[in-house]
Amino acid sequence: MTEPIQNNPLYPIVNPKSIAFFGASNRFTAMGTNQLRSLKLLGFEGTIYPIHPQEDPVLDLKAYQDVMDLPEVPDLAVIALPTSMVPETLEKCGRKGIRRAIITSGGFKEKGGQGIDLEKKLIGIAEQYGIRFLGPNCIGVANPYHHFNVTFLPFTGKSGFIGFASQSGSFITQMFDYLAEFGLGFSTGISVGNEANIDLVDCMEYLAACPHTKVIGLYIEAIRRGRAFIETARRIVGHKPIVAYYAGGSEAGKRAGLSHTGALAGPDRLYEGVFKQSGIIRANAMTELFDICWVLGSCPQARGNRTAILTHSGGPGANAADACNRLGLELIDFSKETIEKIAPFVPHTGSLNNPVDLTFNKNPLAYFDAIPKALMADPKADILLIYLMLPDQPLRRAFGQMGVPEDQIQDQINQYIDELVKSVMKLPETHEKPVIGFSFRSQTDKLVRVLQSKGFPVFPSPERAAKAMAALVQYRYLCERAAKGATP
Amino acid sequence: MTEPIQNNPLYPIVNPKSIAFFGASNRFTAMGTNQLRSLKLLGFEGTIYPIHPQEDPVLDLKAYQDVMDLPEVPDLAVIALPTSMVPETLEKCGRKGIRRAIITSGGFKEKGGQGIDLEKKLIGIAEQYGIRFLGPNCIGVANPYHHFNVTFLPFTGKSGFIGFASQSGSFITQMFDYLAEFGLGFSTGISVGNEANIDLVDCMEYLAACPHTKVIGLYIEAIRRGRAFIETARRIVGHKPIVAYYAGGSEAGKRAGLSHTGALAGPDRLYEGVFKQSGIIRANAMTELFDICWVLGSCPQARGNRTAILTHSGGPGANAADACNRLGLELIDFSKETIEKIAPFVPHTGSLNNPVDLTFNKNPLAYFDAIPKALMADPKADILLIYLMLPDQPLRRAFGQMGVPEDQIQDQINQYIDELVKSVMKLPETHEKPVIGFSFRSQTDKLVRVLQSKGFPVFPSPERAAKAMAALVQYRYLCERAAKGATP
Repeated sequence: MTEPIQNNPLYPIVNPKSIAFFGASNRFTAMGTNQLRSLKLLGFEGTIYPIHPQEDPVLDLKAYQDVMDLPEVPDLAVIALPTSMVPETLEKCGRKGIRRAIITSGGFKEKGGQGIDLEKKLIGIAEQYGIRFLGPNCIGVANPYHHFNVTFLPFTGKSGFIGFASQSGSFITQMFDYLAEFGLGFSTGISVGNEANIDLVDCMEYLAACPHTKVIGLYIEAIRRGRAFIETARRIVGHKPIVAYYAGGSEAGKRAGLSHTGALAGPDRLYEGVFKQSGIIRANAMTELFDICWVLGSCPQARGNRTAILTHSGGPGANAADACNRLGLELIDFSKETIEKIAPFVPHTGSLNNPVDLTFNKNPLAYFDAIPKALMADPKADILLIYLMLPDQPLRRAFGQMGVPEDQIQDQINQYIDELVKSVMKLPETHEKPVIGFSFRSQTDKLVRVLQSKGFPVFPSPERAAKAMAALVQYRYLCERAAKGATP
Repeated sequence: MTEPIQNNPLYPIVNPKSIAFFGASNRFTAMGTNQLRSLKLLGFEGTIYPIHPQEDPVLDLKAYQDVMDLPEVPDLAVIALPTSMVPETLEKCGRKGIRRAIITSGGFKEKGGQGIDLEKKLIGIAEQYGIRFLGPNCIGVANPYHHFNVTFLPFTGKSGFIGFASQSGSFITQMFDYLAEFGLGFSTGISVGNEANIDLVDCMEYLAACPHTKVIGLYIEAIRRGRAFIETARRIVGHKPIVAYYAGGSEAGKRAGLSHTGALAGPDRLYEGVFKQSGIIRANAMTELFDICWVLGSCPQARGNRTAILTHSGGPGANAADACNRLGLELIDFSKETIEKIAPFVPHTGSLNNPVDLTFNKNPLAYFDAIPKALMADPKADILLIYLMLPDQPLRRAFGQMGVPEDQIQDQINQYIDELVKSVMKLPETHEKPVIGFSFRSQTDKLVRVLQSKGFPVFPSPERAAKAMAALVQYRYLCERAAKGATP
């Protein structure tokens, strides 16, 4: 862990300064062309050398007929050529002195038959020249901090704190927008493909050292080096959490994985054991994986599972209480002091028990400030879950009634919401306890949008919030066990 | 069930032609004022008589000092007055001849003590005058088809096919936008509050008869008339499905419900039994409830649980297979004929097994038309789950490369997507089998938006799709058992 990240074999693959690019042309349907376009679109600042036997320039870049003609030895080769051409190309790269490659071409082990032999050839060449390579049958890497995206889809999301290594490339490219809709993003997304040379274990090592990565996510169809996987994860999880989704847990998932990446998945119980031994938090869905990454990357550690819920609507409060309880989060009884502090803000129709229910949010300032402060100050409370719903129209109406001219109302609302958001954002800092929001709304709702854009987790249902909170608690216990030197 | 809906006691409460309105004034912070504003905003076409001792007009409507002064006997009284004034007001309504009321005021049984006596008083008055009333402590009714919304929040959603009766008013008003974001809406939402006179059972009867309602949803904190509940549900479910979420299933949910509506919830197992006996489909979350309503209201019946999955990305396909399998949906092996039909469209990197995986969607027309048609024609396939992801930028690029001028590309994309959507929409009709989509995107994605707006279910994760599909299958079995005269 103390190794500088620059020494990690993946460093030049994720942060290259110069690239030899094979398979891009001016033919727009070619996969490689799309990858090169993605790379240019994100504003890559290094040098790109397209290699093409006939075309020059390629996408307005000076191209070279042969990798041997390049004026320097690039950090990285990206190879998106037809399957049969890949081995000789990798060999040429080796002769040129290139020591890192991303091979996105498919048709290898995952196709069986001759593909298996071709993949073995790649492995042999890499050994011979000391090349480390990603793939084949992957979609590459997206590292927004380095303006580096060689996947065939443009990077449309945000940069963020989730370091993600995936046995499915789609879960990188097709999640850019998904994550952005919650204000989230990848620090780096690495598609490992067939893992002929670099595998999930290597990626964990890299992401553990990556300063932009606060939490590591893994999409798994099969683990290839079990022992190394467990040992590496155990070294990491004490200081950086790892969350994994295993798609081969069911018969059908297993079969799908086999035809996808040629992965031979094991029984679910075996994987359950591997995750437990590794100290990895297991997610049961991809959306759940990113939810858990969200809280682990944005909240202070939970001291325990004792939960306070704040709501201004009975149904969502009961729903949240039910969801928390089912996941083993304990709903505490507040201390007398706490109840005395919040009583003045809770109307007679409301409830001072947990969930604290205002029944009608007449005073958003108290709801977003005084009450949650009092709840967080209660020594028994470890986590606060707060229902966040501030419909636009009543607010608009209220400002109108206060005499605010029509054309200034939107500004006033924006300012008001910014104030509320500031209060909420201060809570986890002040009390060093996780505060998590839920709403049934998306970013079309102003309050949700502003909070999420500032990195505050607001989940689209109490169940998703509760699942993520339970994972926060689980991570706390993992760290405690790790600190004692036990299996995390 | 053969009774005309006009004879149902709830009919004038949900479809009034004239209303006596108590508790609205020109003071904008009053709850009743906001309810009246909501009513006016939705363009209610009947007559509204605000009753106010001093003010006239109220919100530009001619007001009356006393209900006795009204020129006619209105269908309905809406009462949003301070608790202590409610009984005498209801009595006056009775004397005037009004036979239906919505009482939104709180402070009754749910507060205990004197509130319990006040609620008993209401019950007595109603008996004396033959009044049927909704509430107290409810937020009223939203019936968009009648332009009728007396909740305190404006109706911002769409009209739809979900008939919803709820022991939480928030799950009506605060779900308007939530549902609209999936292209869904309520046919009618009824907040039952303390159920002093009208309860969930009455609402089920009404919604069963309501022609706009294709599926009934229930939010439950406690069932008050167990026997009647079971018997009524059993009569309904054979021709209209019922889906329920029970918030009192956990200790914490139970306590929250108690302080919310004074409901005394029972043990989870008891409720599980009630739902089973009733033929009601149980949801484990509110979002899940609406998901299940979505498929039940928009898909043909499933003939069984045998599922085909179509994807153009391995990870989402494996994830979907895993999710389906965990919920007991069987992934079939396709017939030889089916495989022969689809083979020409699947590239060599893809998979002809289930999930059918194109690995790269070069030919959306085949993906949205020829392939799903072939899969649905397979006699072994009962349900099709299809991954729907058509990123904008590659499409834009493709049209550009075909020589379409920049300013016409958006039009071309729109037309193209409309064509694809037409193909998808035809599938369930042609084959009389459910076809369900999933994507990780929301309505910010054009394909998702168009499909959802046309009523086609596209779920935001494979797990949510699979849960809804499992409920479709469950409903089929319920209907089969009901047809045999057995407990559904």
